[in-house]
Amino acid sequence: MFETSLTRKLNIKYPIFQAPMAGGPTTPELVAAVSNAGGLGNLGAGYLTPKQLRNTIHKIRKLTDRPFGVNLFVFEQPEESEEETMKEMSDYLDFYRNELGIPQSPALRKYSESFEEQVQVVLEESVPVFSFTFGIPSPDMIQSMKQRGTFVVGTATTVDEAIQLEASGADAIVAQGSEAGGHRGTFLKNVSDSLIGLMALVPQMVDRVSVPVIASGGIMDGRGLVASLTLGASAVQMGTAFLACTESGAHPTYKQQILSANEDATEITRAYSGKAARGIQTKFMRNMHAYPGKIPPYPIQHVMTKDIRQASAMANNPEYMSLWAGQGLRLANDQSAATIIKQTIDQAKKLIEDRK
Amino acid sequence: MFETSLTRKLNIKYPIFQAPMAGGPTTPELVAAVSNAGGLGNLGAGYLTPKQLRNTIHKIRKLTDRPFGVNLFVFEQPEESEEETMKEMSDYLDFYRNELGIPQSPALRKYSESFEEQVQVVLEESVPVFSFTFGIPSPDMIQSMKQRGTFVVGTATTVDEAIQLEASGADAIVAQGSEAGGHRGTFLKNVSDSLIGLMALVPQMVDRVSVPVIASGGIMDGRGLVASLTLGASAVQMGTAFLACTESGAHPTYKQQILSANEDATEITRAYSGKAARGIQTKFMRNMHAYPGKIPPYPIQHVMTKDIRQASAMANNPEYMSLWAGQGLRLANDQSAATIIKQTIDQAKKLIEDRK
Repeated sequence: MFETSLTRKLNIKYPIFQAPMAGGPTTPELVAAVSNAGGLGNLGAGYLTPKQLRNTIHKIRKLTDRPFGVNLFVFEQPEESEEETMKEMSDYLDFYRNELGIPQSPALRKYSESFEEQVQVVLEESVPVFSFTFGIPSPDMIQSMKQRGTFVVGTATTVDEAIQLEASGADAIVAQGSEAGGHRGTFLKNVSDSLIGLMALVPQMVDRVSVPVIASGGIMDGRGLVASLTLGASAVQMGTAFLACTESGAHPTYKQQILSANEDATEITRAYSGKAARGIQTKFMRNMHAYPGKIPPYPIQHVMTKDIRQASAMANNPEYMSLWAGQGLRLANDQSAATIIKQTIDQAKKLIEDRK
Repeated sequence: MFETSLTRKLNIKYPIFQAPMAGGPTTPELVAAVSNAGGLGNLGAGYLTPKQLRNTIHKIRKLTDRPFGVNLFVFEQPEESEEETMKEMSDYLDFYRNELGIPQSPALRKYSESFEEQVQVVLEESVPVFSFTFGIPSPDMIQSMKQRGTFVVGTATTVDEAIQLEASGADAIVAQGSEAGGHRGTFLKNVSDSLIGLMALVPQMVDRVSVPVIASGGIMDGRGLVASLTLGASAVQMGTAFLACTESGAHPTYKQQILSANEDATEITRAYSGKAARGIQTKFMRNMHAYPGKIPPYPIQHVMTKDIRQASAMANNPEYMSLWAGQGLRLANDQSAATIIKQTIDQAKKLIEDRK
């Protein structure tokens, strides 16, 4: 009933991807639980060192012999930021550091992991599915993946981005609707011009590309699954739906916020990382609306706010944490990943039966 | 196959509402064509004088004996604007008036029609369906409508708005997703906090209210129809899908823009009317990003830009026209309303058959 050319190619039972949520939620346990339950677990590996990445892949493989995916952030050299912009931001952030009782103006560490080194690990480990966000890797890199038998998935927020991804050799494309939580994958136009609701995005995208499209953004249950397949998607990708589940590595305070927030609780902000992302509104985001200076670009701002986010989590204070989340919040639940998948499939089957 | 409690109650064949698009598109011919084809035609009557409204209702009744609807803007007294704010805007707009060769700084006419007088006409004419946008009329007004046998439909952009509408006696609720073209119906929080994608909005709303929900925003064909019903909607409302059709009264230049634009061509702006609305980006909208003053509130700005919008249309220049449109633009077509409905239903039937 849910078999598509995509599920056959990936050898998965259900057309359900668990979204690769970088920064903690996608533990080896979550990835493996989703894959064991018949979906495709995905590791959000953007922030992992090559060594951490390799170890995590090994852990996943100990927990499942089913296919799974690894997601990385496509990354050119970090954008430069003016010394003055960074100094101003650091001074501003000291207000929060003072409140949280952590050291003022810490020295900045390395901005980001090397994309090339991360890719090398994915290649060497012959990961079944490789997905990427924030642009397009070189054609050589994509071809190397494919030669290893790795299935390559890009992320698009507009039809033009999907067309470019297909032309670059992507085997499938995640259509990231405006509802989606976390970082926007936009890489062609401005983020504000690329916030297309999934109901409009999926049919227009499937009309223009021939590779399978995976619908993502605001999908939380069997209704979203069947609706997305009806629009022409070959699978769905669900993130917020798994954020508060048993196996998710999200901080307990983060899970609590996910389980109690409503559909209108989120906004798109550059406050935490320098790159636009959707999350539950916090005091930090609201305060940043009035920040008079410039917010340094990603990943500089991401590194600059790291100590604050961590100290806030340690204090169980959600107001300075990044609480990435999509717009389906009222439907989040705290059961196991396997139960969420079973409920989704059962509801989807019933919807299809009832429609007959 | 498409019968729902809503279609039975309204005595319509298909769960398709044509969106009430004020300002020209919803001619009596369009409203009647949709109703005659089995959907529910809706007159966007917000800008009509009571006399025009009565005449238009009479014209619709000459063209169809099927049910149809009238939509009005719920309207308190026009917000005041500072003399200085209006003077600055008028001076700024003179640049466009000069370019278009029309008189500078014209005297402002009446801001808006009287909502009470418009409602009186709807009551006296016993219109089958009355829908409203921008808030909630008084409980007395809603009860008077219902006593006349009129079916009352409110517009909500969030779940909380839907809950308030149900409590006020609305018989059904249009769920306006962030994809939707034209004015945002938001009346509780800020517009920017109330841009919920339809895929997330519909299931969360139907879980919280017991009256039927009509999905609107980005729905252009049978895929959007079946997907919306799957999410729990009892019908869909399609606007952009009918904007360029034969019977639409949209200006030819507007139709041309609708037929050639893509999903990422729109933005939400206050530039034309003072109230947030989604439309195809124009030079006027882009210029207004840099406007240093305050944009007067609706309906003052709407009245202030009227001569410019009209002169721009006369000159077949889209750049100073308001080109309201949703995000489904690539799927717009210029056939007759009856053909659009037939294609939508045929495609929907096929999707349901194929899913079995």
